[in-house]
Amino acid sequence: MSKKRIYKPKPISGFPEWLPEERRAEQAWFDHIRSTFESYGFCSIETPSVEELDTINAKGGDGESDADKEIYVLERLHKQEGDKEARLALHFDQTVPLARYTAQHFNELVFPFKRYQIQRVWRGERPQAGRFREFYQCDIDVINVDKLPLHFDAEMPAVIWETLSSLPGMSEKFQIRISNRKILIGFLESLGINNQHDIIHITRNVDKIEKQGQKELEVTLIAVVKSALNIDNAEEALPIVKLILELAQTKASPSEISGLLRDFITRNDVIARSGSDAAIHSTLQEGIEELSFVMDQLSHLPEGAVVADLAIVRGLDYYTGTVYETMFVDDPSYGSICSGGRYDDLAGHYINKHLPGVGISIGFSRLFERIRKNGTLPVKGISPADVMVVLPSEEQRPLMMETAQSLRANGNKVETFHSPTKIDKQIKYALKKGIPYVWFPDLGEVKNMETREQVSATPKEWKPNEN
Amino acid sequence: MSKKRIYKPKPISGFPEWLPEERRAEQAWFDHIRSTFESYGFCSIETPSVEELDTINAKGGDGESDADKEIYVLERLHKQEGDKEARLALHFDQTVPLARYTAQHFNELVFPFKRYQIQRVWRGERPQAGRFREFYQCDIDVINVDKLPLHFDAEMPAVIWETLSSLPGMSEKFQIRISNRKILIGFLESLGINNQHDIIHITRNVDKIEKQGQKELEVTLIAVVKSALNIDNAEEALPIVKLILELAQTKASPSEISGLLRDFITRNDVIARSGSDAAIHSTLQEGIEELSFVMDQLSHLPEGAVVADLAIVRGLDYYTGTVYETMFVDDPSYGSICSGGRYDDLAGHYINKHLPGVGISIGFSRLFERIRKNGTLPVKGISPADVMVVLPSEEQRPLMMETAQSLRANGNKVETFHSPTKIDKQIKYALKKGIPYVWFPDLGEVKNMETREQVSATPKEWKPNEN
Repeated sequence: MSKKRIYKPKPISGFPEWLPEERRAEQAWFDHIRSTFESYGFCSIETPSVEELDTINAKGGDGESDADKEIYVLERLHKQEGDKEARLALHFDQTVPLARYTAQHFNELVFPFKRYQIQRVWRGERPQAGRFREFYQCDIDVINVDKLPLHFDAEMPAVIWETLSSLPGMSEKFQIRISNRKILIGFLESLGINNQHDIIHITRNVDKIEKQGQKELEVTLIAVVKSALNIDNAEEALPIVKLILELAQTKASPSEISGLLRDFITRNDVIARSGSDAAIHSTLQEGIEELSFVMDQLSHLPEGAVVADLAIVRGLDYYTGTVYETMFVDDPSYGSICSGGRYDDLAGHYINKHLPGVGISIGFSRLFERIRKNGTLPVKGISPADVMVVLPSEEQRPLMMETAQSLRANGNKVETFHSPTKIDKQIKYALKKGIPYVWFPDLGEVKNMETREQVSATPKEWKPNEN
Repeated sequence: MSKKRIYKPKPISGFPEWLPEERRAEQAWFDHIRSTFESYGFCSIETPSVEELDTINAKGGDGESDADKEIYVLERLHKQEGDKEARLALHFDQTVPLARYTAQHFNELVFPFKRYQIQRVWRGERPQAGRFREFYQCDIDVINVDKLPLHFDAEMPAVIWETLSSLPGMSEKFQIRISNRKILIGFLESLGINNQHDIIHITRNVDKIEKQGQKELEVTLIAVVKSALNIDNAEEALPIVKLILELAQTKASPSEISGLLRDFITRNDVIARSGSDAAIHSTLQEGIEELSFVMDQLSHLPEGAVVADLAIVRGLDYYTGTVYETMFVDDPSYGSICSGGRYDDLAGHYINKHLPGVGISIGFSRLFERIRKNGTLPVKGISPADVMVVLPSEEQRPLMMETAQSLRANGNKVETFHSPTKIDKQIKYALKKGIPYVWFPDLGEVKNMETREQVSATPKEWKPNEN
């Protein structure tokens, strides 16, 4: 035989994979998240990894947006002559798939449709710390026909708080920041800033409030306000910009937010500018009421769990009311680990139904990678086995097998040793794999590898000590 | 606003997705499979969805094999100027990823490395009944350095039997067919058929024994045997072909196979043809011993669970010993739902180590689709909730929330009703979602929706009846 050429494989940038012990921690996280989501009655769905490119484009993609640049499309390595197939793209989020799924199966679903979805998504962006090209998202959304009660807007952060705060090994304080887009947008409109383009320009800048310097932001906003309101000089625009920034920088606990906002409105007569335009008043008013209601419903959460933060507006323009972001308290610069919001019209591109919804998405891989690097994930063995049954001699293989089967029948996870080598070597294997108990079938005894205690036991009845 | 154009989404051929109630059954299957795999000490790994094309090609792909035609490669929809990235392909099985993973993390793994892997794989083949383009495989493999005891070859079908036979809703009898490639190949060599090309030609035809007519197969084999052994006429080749077919058509229970094979060898003096070539004798001999050993270890399984079937050779040429296929007893034409075998050299293309292994792979989606169509999957509700708490009136929302939280704290899955509409409507929602209990927080009572029994209960203590 000729000598083989060896191709030494290396990690693919942006496509993480874990060693078995890390994978165990990841599985424990998924189990915990799934179980918490289900404890609130969310059902699981899973969509294909791909959507038709036509489906994605129907959602308003113009082929040149930021998201589009990140999309991976599939090509057959060796395309057959005459293949005429729809172009398929790996999904880059779980919202497009949810919208498509809800429209496609509309008649078979029960509304309000409460679903969770834990899948990989793909984005071809340049990998960097905590940013992957293939990563998991864990989403919950509630969709209803025509109207969706505001209570669901309050359920989302409650579920997320419960989920994240009890993740095994979670070693960082985090806070869910909540706002309602109607407030800032309604306020801008009440100032007379009605142009969609100007509003987007301002909200996108406000959204980056923590990353930009105050001065720099002021300069940008002054320019927008001048042009939006036909103001000639910066001095006249400045007080308006300051008002916008004051509002955007409002942060308050659930019990304080309502009072603060009402006070802000009363203190400033800016609303008067828009005169008798009741519709504009009502947007701002609605936003304040909705946010106050949501925060009020969350007052049972521990102090600091949630905060009203008017700077949160979310870049994505399909959000129409409540919006959420979740930051590490000690390192907000890591970015949001869990975001979402309320949208008025989930699937209008795919079905002639009005389907409002509210949802939130955990950036699982970003979060897991962070906690993994912190070194606080619970350390368990490589092997999931509770116990390893040794093989004292080849003659005792039937006894070993029988012991293992009895232990399994009693609900234990069991590894067996495969060859009758020295017992020391067998025990070493159990230690290396982190198996907490070793069973000696010839002695009818089991040894706790941590305490080194060895006791008589019956396979049919034995269970490991939970600690 | 302008009227929106609606793009009505449709299913993508070969990329299945399920309704929530079907998805619940699928999750139950995954849970069951995972738990059985872990009960034998297999640890979980997950690899990225992609491998570098170079990694796949290193494995001997010549760009024109059957598998290559099925490979999907990724392209960025809008490739950036100057992007120079390795070409990535979605994996088409879990064996290439396992080989790459084992080589890449060799120094961090503990051997024997027993891993399971439950992931999607992708193949661009034409979709047909039970053949998808995106589907799940559930694999177990054991890899060791230099030598891997034969006991693991027997553990594989034992695990698979336990896994498949107790899947919820499994409505078809199946049988694991086992052979050892050394027997047929050793026998051919003992007949003087030593050419690799001839051997592959014969084994691939024997592999299709059930799909081809006996006569047709005879004609094909006569041609090969004539050319391989330099025989001029068909009459002389026929008895040899008949011997090959007799051997290939040998089927026997675990207790019978050893005797049958020894008898076959004794009855036929064909071995003598190869004269004193002990190496050839030994391949055949080894095969018989290995298969006898494996079958012997499986004698504790129920009658008919496994069968020795010498026609099983597996098309894939990397198998070197034991091979497995699993067929529906009443419909073998559906093809194998679970296959695998022993390989001598898992990762020789990626690392200069000798890594023998044995593994088996459940074609999950094929199997699930079959049982789903049979209509025997356990029917559970759309919602995972055990109980729904009604909302008698808006004033009672705090009581409802508190009740729900107490029920959750006690380990229950709880849905709440969102608005204080008529109780009838609320109950109807619970029925539609298949939630088995409804809780009336104002009455402190819970109703079993099946038996219609309604009793007093305390949220902190209540658990649903398991039935």
